Amino acid sequence: MTEAGIWFGVDYYPEHWPKSQWKADVKLISEAGFNVVRLAEFAWCRIEPSPGRFDFSWLDEIIGELAEKGIKAILGTPTAAPPPWLVKLHPDILPMSYQGHRMPPVARRHYCPNNPNYLRATERVVKALAEHYKDEPNVIGYQIDNELSLGDEYCYCEHCVQLFREWLERKYGDIDELNKAYGTIFWSHEYGDWTEIHPPTPPFDRCNRGLALDWLRFRSESFIKFLELQVGIIRSVSPDKKITTNLMGLFPGIDYYELSRLLDFPSWDCYPKFRHVDYDPAWVAMLHDATRCMGRDRSYWVMELQAGPTDGYHGHPIGVTPEPGELRKWAYQAIAHGADGVIYFRWRTACFGKEQYWHGILNHDGEVNRRYLEVKRLGEELEKVKDLVAGTKYRSNVGLVFSYEALWSTLIEEGYYTMSYHDQVLSLYKGFWLHGINVDVISPNEDFMRYNVLLTPFLYLTNRSLITRLKKFVYNGGILIATARTSVKDEYNRVHSDGLPGGLMDLFGMKVTDYTCLPAERRASILMEGRVIQAVGWLEELTPSSAQVLGVHDYEWLKGRAAVTVNRYGEGYAVYVGSFPSSDIANHIVKVLIKRGIIKPLVRVEGDHLELTVREGSHYRVVFLINHEGRDKSVKLYFAKAFRIKGLLKGGTSHGDKHEYELELGPHDAEILYLEE
Amino acid sequence: MTEAGIWFGVDYYPEHWPKSQWKADVKLISEAGFNVVRLAEFAWCRIEPSPGRFDFSWLDEIIGELAEKGIKAILGTPTAAPPPWLVKLHPDILPMSYQGHRMPPVARRHYCPNNPNYLRATERVVKALAEHYKDEPNVIGYQIDNELSLGDEYCYCEHCVQLFREWLERKYGDIDELNKAYGTIFWSHEYGDWTEIHPPTPPFDRCNRGLALDWLRFRSESFIKFLELQVGIIRSVSPDKKITTNLMGLFPGIDYYELSRLLDFPSWDCYPKFRHVDYDPAWVAMLHDATRCMGRDRSYWVMELQAGPTDGYHGHPIGVTPEPGELRKWAYQAIAHGADGVIYFRWRTACFGKEQYWHGILNHDGEVNRRYLEVKRLGEELEKVKDLVAGTKYRSNVGLVFSYEALWSTLIEEGYYTMSYHDQVLSLYKGFWLHGINVDVISPNEDFMRYNVLLTPFLYLTNRSLITRLKKFVYNGGILIATARTSVKDEYNRVHSDGLPGGLMDLFGMKVTDYTCLPAERRASILMEGRVIQAVGWLEELTPSSAQVLGVHDYEWLKGRAAVTVNRYGEGYAVYVGSFPSSDIANHIVKVLIKRGIIKPLVRVEGDHLELTVREGSHYRVVFLINHEGRDKSVKLYFAKAFRIKGLLKGGTSHGDKHEYELELGPHDAEILYLEE
Amino acid sequence: MTEAGIWFGVDYYPEHWPKSQWKADVKLISEAGFNVVRLAEFAWCRIEPSPGRFDFSWLDEIIGELAEKGIKAILGTPTAAPPPWLVKLHPDILPMSYQGHRMPPVARRHYCPNNPNYLRATERVVKALAEHYKDEPNVIGYQIDNELSLGDEYCYCEHCVQLFREWLERKYGDIDELNKAYGTIFWSHEYGDWTEIHPPTPPFDRCNRGLALDWLRFRSESFIKFLELQVGIIRSVSPDKKITTNLMGLFPGIDYYELSRLLDFPSWDCYPKFRHVDYDPAWVAMLHDATRCMGRDRSYWVMELQAGPTDGYHGHPIGVTPEPGELRKWAYQAIAHGADGVIYFRWRTACFGKEQYWHGILNHDGEVNRRYLEVKRLGEELEKVKDLVAGTKYRSNVGLVFSYEALWSTLIEEGYYTMSYHDQVLSLYKGFWLHGINVDVISPNEDFMRYNVLLTPFLYLTNRSLITRLKKFVYNGGILIATARTSVKDEYNRVHSDGLPGGLMDLFGMKVTDYTCLPAERRASILMEGRVIQAVGWLEELTPSSAQVLGVHDYEWLKGRAAVTVNRYGEGYAVYVGSFPSSDIANHIVKVLIKRGIIKPLVRVEGDHLELTVREGSHYRVVFLINHEGRDKSVKLYFAKAFRIKGLLKGGTSHGDKHEYELELGPHDAEILYLEE
Repeated sequence: MTEAGIWFGVDYYPEHWPKSQWKADVKLISEAGFNVVRLAEFAWCRIEPSPGRFDFSWLDEIIGELAEKGIKAILGTPTAAPPPWLVKLHPDILPMSYQGHRMPPVARRHYCPNNPNYLRATERVVKALAEHYKDEPNVIGYQIDNELSLGDEYCYCEHCVQLFREWLERKYGDIDELNKAYGTIFWSHEYGDWTEIHPPTPPFDRCNRGLALDWLRFRSESFIKFLELQVGIIRSVSPDKKITTNLMGLFPGIDYYELSRLLDFPSWDCYPKFRHVDYDPAWVAMLHDATRCMGRDRSYWVMELQAGPTDGYHGHPIGVTPEPGELRKWAYQAIAHGADGVIYFRWRTACFGKEQYWHGILNHDGEVNRRYLEVKRLGEELEKVKDLVAGTKYRSNVGLVFSYEALWSTLIEEGYYTMSYHDQVLSLYKGFWLHGINVDVISPNEDFMRYNVLLTPFLYLTNRSLITRLKKFVYNGGILIATARTSVKDEYNRVHSDGLPGGLMDLFGMKVTDYTCLPAERRASILMEGRVIQAVGWLEELTPSSAQVLGVHDYEWLKGRAAVTVNRYGEGYAVYVGSFPSSDIANHIVKVLIKRGIIKPLVRVEGDHLELTVREGSHYRVVFLINHEGRDKSVKLYFAKAFRIKGLLKGGTSHGDKHEYELELGPHDAEILYLEE
Repeated sequence: MTEAGIWFGVDYYPEHWPKSQWKADVKLISEAGFNVVRLAEFAWCRIEPSPGRFDFSWLDEIIGELAEKGIKAILGTPTAAPPPWLVKLHPDILPMSYQGHRMPPVARRHYCPNNPNYLRATERVVKALAEHYKDEPNVIGYQIDNELSLGDEYCYCEHCVQLFREWLERKYGDIDELNKAYGTIFWSHEYGDWTEIHPPTPPFDRCNRGLALDWLRFRSESFIKFLELQVGIIRSVSPDKKITTNLMGLFPGIDYYELSRLLDFPSWDCYPKFRHVDYDPAWVAMLHDATRCMGRDRSYWVMELQAGPTDGYHGHPIGVTPEPGELRKWAYQAIAHGADGVIYFRWRTACFGKEQYWHGILNHDGEVNRRYLEVKRLGEELEKVKDLVAGTKYRSNVGLVFSYEALWSTLIEEGYYTMSYHDQVLSLYKGFWLHGINVDVISPNEDFMRYNVLLTPFLYLTNRSLITRLKKFVYNGGILIATARTSVKDEYNRVHSDGLPGGLMDLFGMKVTDYTCLPAERRASILMEGRVIQAVGWLEELTPSSAQVLGVHDYEWLKGRAAVTVNRYGEGYAVYVGSFPSSDIANHIVKVLIKRGIIKPLVRVEGDHLELTVREGSHYRVVFLINHEGRDKSVKLYFAKAFRIKGLLKGGTSHGDKHEYELELGPHDAEILYLEE
Repeated sequence: MTEAGIWFGVDYYPEHWPKSQWKADVKLISEAGFNVVRLAEFAWCRIEPSPGRFDFSWLDEIIGELAEKGIKAILGTPTAAPPPWLVKLHPDILPMSYQGHRMPPVARRHYCPNNPNYLRATERVVKALAEHYKDEPNVIGYQIDNELSLGDEYCYCEHCVQLFREWLERKYGDIDELNKAYGTIFWSHEYGDWTEIHPPTPPFDRCNRGLALDWLRFRSESFIKFLELQVGIIRSVSPDKKITTNLMGLFPGIDYYELSRLLDFPSWDCYPKFRHVDYDPAWVAMLHDATRCMGRDRSYWVMELQAGPTDGYHGHPIGVTPEPGELRKWAYQAIAHGADGVIYFRWRTACFGKEQYWHGILNHDGEVNRRYLEVKRLGEELEKVKDLVAGTKYRSNVGLVFSYEALWSTLIEEGYYTMSYHDQVLSLYKGFWLHGINVDVISPNEDFMRYNVLLTPFLYLTNRSLITRLKKFVYNGGILIATARTSVKDEYNRVHSDGLPGGLMDLFGMKVTDYTCLPAERRASILMEGRVIQAVGWLEELTPSSAQVLGVHDYEWLKGRAAVTVNRYGEGYAVYVGSFPSSDIANHIVKVLIKRGIIKPLVRVEGDHLELTVREGSHYRVVFLINHEGRDKSVKLYFAKAFRIKGLLKGGTSHGDKHEYELELGPHDAEILYLEE
């Protein structure tokens, strides 16, 4: 889907504004350089104003107006917000809390994805939409629903309970198999038949661990099935249209890697400053890298990119306003990580509804402002660089494993919830990000053999297959870096009963023989190659069999015991860090890997708050360089070999005989360097 | 209602004590100098012990005992606490949460003001009460109910839902008008008919803004209607009795300005130290000024004045005990702000029930204590000064607008909730309070032409009429001072779509072209006439058309942009401060106003923690001076012109040729100066 | 039950592991020196796999295996965890919240102790268990249920409501008596009949104080009755078996002193490090002293002693791991305070269920580890000292009163809840603990004449009998030490109406004439015998009649007023401290008591973090000395007279001519000294 080079667009809600406004909107949209808009994702009540009566005339009209300017459309299926008539007709579509309360229909997402009435209504509206636009060339594809999800407590309606029991029966066959897998003998929970099973209720911390994990799996699958229903309808009606859905980074409710297999490409909603006064750009980078890797062919879009301040939140009436330069910078960050499309949310700020302060590019008054001018400048730049950029791909030989099952296992436990799995993964990621090393953030089901280095931070839960594949990876020459609490749990969310790391003691050449949580009030260090590295949250005593000790504890009763080990296994090495992965630890490990030549960065940059990625073309490369600070900077780059270099945005060139390149960056500025040997 | 000069009294619950105690109580009450008591406000179960059977004998008896000592009675209608028999007979009177839970009848206020069964029971008991005392001269009036209100989540019973739908139908006539006013197209909420409407549920932040505002209006009106029912009954039976109700300062649940129009005079419950270790006396002063302005003729009472420590709250077993002098001081503060009546709550501390530690003047043991002696001394003083004081009025030419609709609009939004509207209003108020300038705290519906200066802090929501009246005020020579987030919303709680401040850009001669929330973690300043003033919470870029720039931002990307402007408009001036109104900003503005002669204070005092107000008589004035610290003070006053001065409480005089006056104040002490030219 | 000298054991769940594992488990258990295990407490679903069908074969088998090694068994009745088939058959056994929600059956304790269906099921299973093992000599006794309790909001089912009304009718006879006792006239709560009464709902702070206290009494009695049912069945079937239940320290939900009267001996579950990074060993000591005093003959066990890290909690994935030495130390602490049995929880860490991280002695892998070796060493030591120790008793002439009714009264009030009753009691306790003085922590119903000194910290609620007994105690020569807020409430939870301390003004020779809460933000001191002592949370002005002033306030308006008094009353002295009992105050008082010869400690130790208790035998004593720090220590003991001393654990002796003894203690080390005159 790269006929546009780079898809550059905006989310537009024409139905929020009088028709008299449309022409002026389309003109400004076109002048900004946008070549695509997303439409109609919350317009069910307009598309189907009463049961079975459809009206696409208004949508046809705006699609036509846009087409005149050469702007394509992506249509949202409208199922994220069932209209009032549907709620009145079928109140049972409302999700039910475990205490029996129906979710009030006051906002959006007020439906149970397993409710038969909702499924029927969904089928009808999606089919009508697909049929109506199957021959419309200006509709290039569909976004299914919007930010698929449900709150923590939902849904425990009779359909969900019944389907869950059936799901369990299909999985375990015999109730005694389930009893064994869960260890229901604990606290006398042994079931006599499937109807005795109640879904676990929040806080899940109180519940059987196996049951809770299966419930999270079931809930994730419920949404994937709901999406599959819609994908099936659209594919059968108009197989040529592209299908995506807008994800929310590494949202914990649904296994996005599984879900994305059904899509032509995934997309995500990127709001760096939502709820963050000082956000971490590495966090945003990691979500780009994850979404890209969810795509079947590493292709993805940003479907919503922050275009202004967001809604308020605790203590802040409105989110902090993006500074001059940030909107442009965020778009370049997306492209730097491989995005094929970047769509700002939204065109003009809504004056009503719930999200009055989820600002678009334009403010409520619809006048050209500094944000519009910034985006327009970006549009002009993209027009110039798009062909060169579109011909490249983001590639990496470092794979970082993000496991939804590991995540879920931690979410079920009270304490781990605050020792956030996401934070631990980010810490290790950041060690590489700081060095400008491309990283893939992958599912545990990914083919590991694509990588030289594999990072498995806090890989709390494993299964037999994963254990085997990790061993095979290292045996064949890979470098594996794991941290504390690796393979504690098996696929039934039981603790491995034969020692930790479960099933991997031979791979790491050691056993975890003691451990303690390290409360925030206490400090502990690991001594490693003459350096004092701060440990975080957890300490393990490692007892090596074949492994070498790389670092030892410096903490009370653990002083001197092994804290970091490395083990030769086949052709590769398996490193184990007996603490949670602080950025400090990760940073140190990357330095060791570079020093040993295992990782060979193409380019190095000096200075803080700079991000650097590389995209590779047939015979050239482009390097993206981003200044994440609101102040000017002189930057110097050091290349691994000599290149001819051209600055695509700021001009500037360097002949092919130098390993260095210097440039000036403004606040929140970006540059794309074209490299040829 | 000033036949007593100043009504001075106590809230008394004879039904809590054996009759054998009554005579002794009445004797002590009389000896304290009290001339009025409030009675019977929670005595439904005694007045009507079973359905339709009434017993006033005990109440007659105590009214008689009090009358013998010349003490009048105010009677509470008992509807704040329905008796158990009524709950059993009609469980549906209990308010219902949005999740369908009935409020447990364990405390008080457990009724829905829209429940037909409750309305019938209310009519019966109020009518019986009014009939019984219509010819009793010692009953001078009634307090309707007690602290009218309901918790945040209530009531969503079928009657409320139905009445709300009817209320909406009356207001909008056509469902499409409502859809348009609310912008229900947002998230596909367009209604087909009225029965599809569900009231918004907490947190309102999730809901349509227009719907949420109408719900708050409806809830406020429900209580006003409930009060009106009772007022109507009493007026028709005994038109000569005065009617009031006890308010709670600027409680957000009910528009007290609207409600008070039904009363002969409002009264309020003043507990400076409840939940406050260090309370702000300016806060109490502002509530006095607000309640006074709610009264049709600027007449009001304090119906409950703190007389001892209050109930416990988080972390404190009991509220902090008033220090010696505070009870007396609080009474003088009330009178200083224009109160015609001051009633302490309560006589003797209850030994049982819920409020065992909401102390009265006497402790549980009923013995004379230091608080009684302090109140008694006050009684003696009031006897001496009452005639002079009663002949004066608190007047102001500065009006501060408190808008319930602006408040509600902020309460609906999560972020604004913590940027409390009340706090912002207080900040601006305090700038004037610190200079001893009388201020009226008025409704936006007040006649602005009474004032020279109008303050509209955080006037978030406006309507066409208000916009017109603000312009007219300035056009005719008024000084208007507004702050950030003025006129953001229209009457349907939509953001103005034509620029900010909505409808007032010509008045202020500028437009708000950019803004950002300023998180607490960040510091920002405004440079104004050579001073550095701290900005708080919010920053706006103002782009002047005709306005002059008074101050500029000193903050990151906003540096140098206009932050404060003043615009000549007709005969007046409109000042706009592009930040939330800190006391620092307010203080500076008052100084400018005084310097320019726009405000001319009669008297100035040097020193901290001193409060100063002026009441004007026919040919003289009285100045109230209060020491809000627990230590001795030497105070010097500077007058705008020469007066003959007499110290009414402490003696001391000064002849009419001096502009200064000196006196000594003890801890929490007060003085009243009589001034004649 | 001392045939074993000291019962030393472990809680074991053979049903969690394959039978093939049992022999190896029993071998290791035996080798550790254990002579008892607790079994089957959560095995209802195995014992009665379907209604009325029982299977004890597996339990017989493991009891047999253990018996072969000479290990006895305690069996838990399994009622703490009803099996799924019972929930399905009788969903009404699930407790109901006050809002009508049934507790989800996802964990344990999901039953209402008043539900008739549950009582029938309980009878059947307990009877079957008792019958089956009545002739089994290796079953020495039963633990009833497990940690009897219910969450705060439960149970409000129809049975509970009905039984509560009947309970009230039995207690008060006439509804008017109840109205009078509660003061229901407050807020119009006067009841016409019993069916109008609703149980109070949380937060109880809103409710009538008398009603709330009776509800807490009723809930406590409901569990005591439930236990009594089971005790009755077992006693009638096998009168020779011992009966206990495992308590939770001074858990507030049930009056453990009342409950324990039904038992042969109480036991408790001791987890010093659960939810505590730095726990206070005095807290643990106090709970030992309390549980011992609950026992009819001062005999008690620790039924669960922490054996490893516990489950996670907020911010911590798993509890902090016990350091080397702590497991052994905790066992010695228990014995030092008089425990006859110490049972570690649990044998091996469960791999599934809820408590995957509530570690046993062994980790999940079942291998011998440092904790096992530590416990084994302890087993060897106990074998050597058990006969000497078993021949002694912990005795004290200092009694500290812990009143459940006082506690409940504070729990009902919001503010007091945070001024924790437990904390106040601990503060006073700690003053004695720091001096190594044996203390009994007793019920207010205990015979006070056993003691020379009686401590009544924060004895908030009293009744006539208690008042009389306190006076008699002092009159006959006792020393009574009371603190602020003594006897504020009467037995109906009303405040005494005749002055404070209620009914005790003559005993203390003074009256409390004023008071204030002291917020945490404020500092206040008491001046006493030339020392400045910090006051905490509360200040009272005491006005003496006959008492002498021992200390005066140094705080603002209270400066110079009496703060601490002592009164001669009969042959004794009554001391009253007009503030909450800080450790500082308590410490100072103990010094005065020692100085005046009222308390005569046998031995004194120099140094911090050392605990010291004495057990007395027929002609000898043993002194326990424990190092509560994780570092080495040189310790010196000073004895009141000369003893011949032998160190039972570390060797070392001293002849009978010295008053001193020196020894070295390792980290978390303990010593037992044998003393003979």
